Amino acid sequence: MIQIPGFSDVENASKRIAQFVHKTPVLSSKSLNEIAGCELFFKCENFQKVGAFKFRGATNAVQNLPKDELSKGVCTHSSGNHAQALSLAAKQAGVPAYIVMPKNAPQVKIDAVRNYGAEIFFCEPTLEARETTLKKVQEKTGASFIHPYNNFHVIAGQGTAAKELLEEVNDIDAIVAPVGGGGLMSGTAIASKALYSNIKLYGTEPKAADDAKRSLDAGKLIPSVSPKTMADGLLTSLSDATFHVLKNHLTDILTCSEESIVLAMQYLYERMKIVVEPSGAVPLACVLENKEVFKKQRIGIIISGGNVDVQKLPF
Amino acid sequence: MIQIPGFSDVENASKRIAQFVHKTPVLSSKSLNEIAGCELFFKCENFQKVGAFKFRGATNAVQNLPKDELSKGVCTHSSGNHAQALSLAAKQAGVPAYIVMPKNAPQVKIDAVRNYGAEIFFCEPTLEARETTLKKVQEKTGASFIHPYNNFHVIAGQGTAAKELLEEVNDIDAIVAPVGGGGLMSGTAIASKALYSNIKLYGTEPKAADDAKRSLDAGKLIPSVSPKTMADGLLTSLSDATFHVLKNHLTDILTCSEESIVLAMQYLYERMKIVVEPSGAVPLACVLENKEVFKKQRIGIIISGGNVDVQKLPF
Repeated sequence: MIQIPGFSDVENASKRIAQFVHKTPVLSSKSLNEIAGCELFFKCENFQKVGAFKFRGATNAVQNLPKDELSKGVCTHSSGNHAQALSLAAKQAGVPAYIVMPKNAPQVKIDAVRNYGAEIFFCEPTLEARETTLKKVQEKTGASFIHPYNNFHVIAGQGTAAKELLEEVNDIDAIVAPVGGGGLMSGTAIASKALYSNIKLYGTEPKAADDAKRSLDAGKLIPSVSPKTMADGLLTSLSDATFHVLKNHLTDILTCSEESIVLAMQYLYERMKIVVEPSGAVPLACVLENKEVFKKQRIGIIISGGNVDVQKLPF
Repeated sequence: MIQIPGFSDVENASKRIAQFVHKTPVLSSKSLNEIAGCELFFKCENFQKVGAFKFRGATNAVQNLPKDELSKGVCTHSSGNHAQALSLAAKQAGVPAYIVMPKNAPQVKIDAVRNYGAEIFFCEPTLEARETTLKKVQEKTGASFIHPYNNFHVIAGQGTAAKELLEEVNDIDAIVAPVGGGGLMSGTAIASKALYSNIKLYGTEPKAADDAKRSLDAGKLIPSVSPKTMADGLLTSLSDATFHVLKNHLTDILTCSEESIVLAMQYLYERMKIVVEPSGAVPLACVLENKEVFKKQRIGIIISGGNVDVQKLPF
């Protein structure tokens, strides 16, 4: 298992990435508060560079590499927000990024990664092909592999969003964030518990991809097997490191239906006037399905990202 | 002609409305800057209460009424953002609001005004019927008529958005805002010129509703005659007061096609991750149609509002 970062690592990450990332705004909406029956404070990582919190962790990991390793560049396999995040983080550090993507990845995602200047290696759409291809790329280039969440500095970087939220808004009773691989939730937990030891922490995921809930219920890591949810950022399984952090820190893990995700998205568009991707609406969807849990409390929600095809919204 | 507010009136408005309005964030996007060929700073009044800048002016006007007049409430005729803004401003002051609306107004707008606690009076969808009905309401209730833009305190209140923008972002070369009745543009001009006498000011409107451009070209107020544009917040004509301010202060007035409005909206959703109404996208549409005018400059854009049916987006 990789080492688990502590709060000082999140603090160091904050300083290290400050010049590269957006300090995203915290927004709230009276009408949404009335609907939810509690006070909601949304940390809007959809406004982060590349449109997702992933840029925090990727930047921290890249900036932490020793000079000689950094100069050889970084690589990963991903077709999602981490690929874009790592590409831009490498570009800002002036080093190459090599991204392994399944050859059936959507053109819009391929274009986005290419626009950030990364070199793309296509592979068959299987985990085995991804890993083999990545290995070849590493051997060829000497680039450092930056895992999307099973990485010390990535987890520390993701924790900076919750740190900013808690420094801006007082008296938060609970923080709610989405769980995919668990990097955001782990960083959030480490930062939040260090700042407020009594704060409650809720992981959230779609019912249709509830591997984190099943893992925590079972007390052991149960991988996700071809889950089907519109929340395409939450398809991945936990790693041993993120499972460990979540097991120690989460108050509970909540799930929501696909219908609730659509409704939550629509509320965020209509009431908050923000564009979010389905994964980013999962925390609000879970709050709305569990109103009694949050009743009259002050709740921090991390909106994970806003990368969605706005021509194909689900409402 | 009503009296024209000065910068001290905008400053007073800022203080008076501070406890009621959101200080909205200023957002920017590197990728949009690359597309536009200049640096854009968006003052996001789509995040304002009721989803539009109109809440600033309405709140300032309501809060400025003498106690005995205020207690009788306020009234206006509008089916748009001003109706919602005045309703909420009255509610926050604890006084009644009476809104005259055409009986063919969209149900969603009727519901919104009703949700803010206003009493609605329906009339035939003609200007004459609106004015007659409003007069009757005034006689019956003694409420003060708050015009959506031909009002000293409304104009001063709208100027607070540009004041906040210029206090937050340095070295702005030009400010670009939409022109409907001209209240926002007038307040913006008064605030901006007082803070930076050399700043350039561009009014923007759809080609299909270019009455402000024609008025300024002709040197006299030419009313808008049944314009057809998706920018439904920009259908109204200037008043003598707003025409006077615009004539004295505008560097130029730019227009854009309906296609450009759709494209600008899509960019704002995709790149900035914000929900804007068509009128709110008009300044960006005009910038993109006139790139040479703004080349390499630092441009402040006021996003007027975000009240749009997200189930019927035009892209």
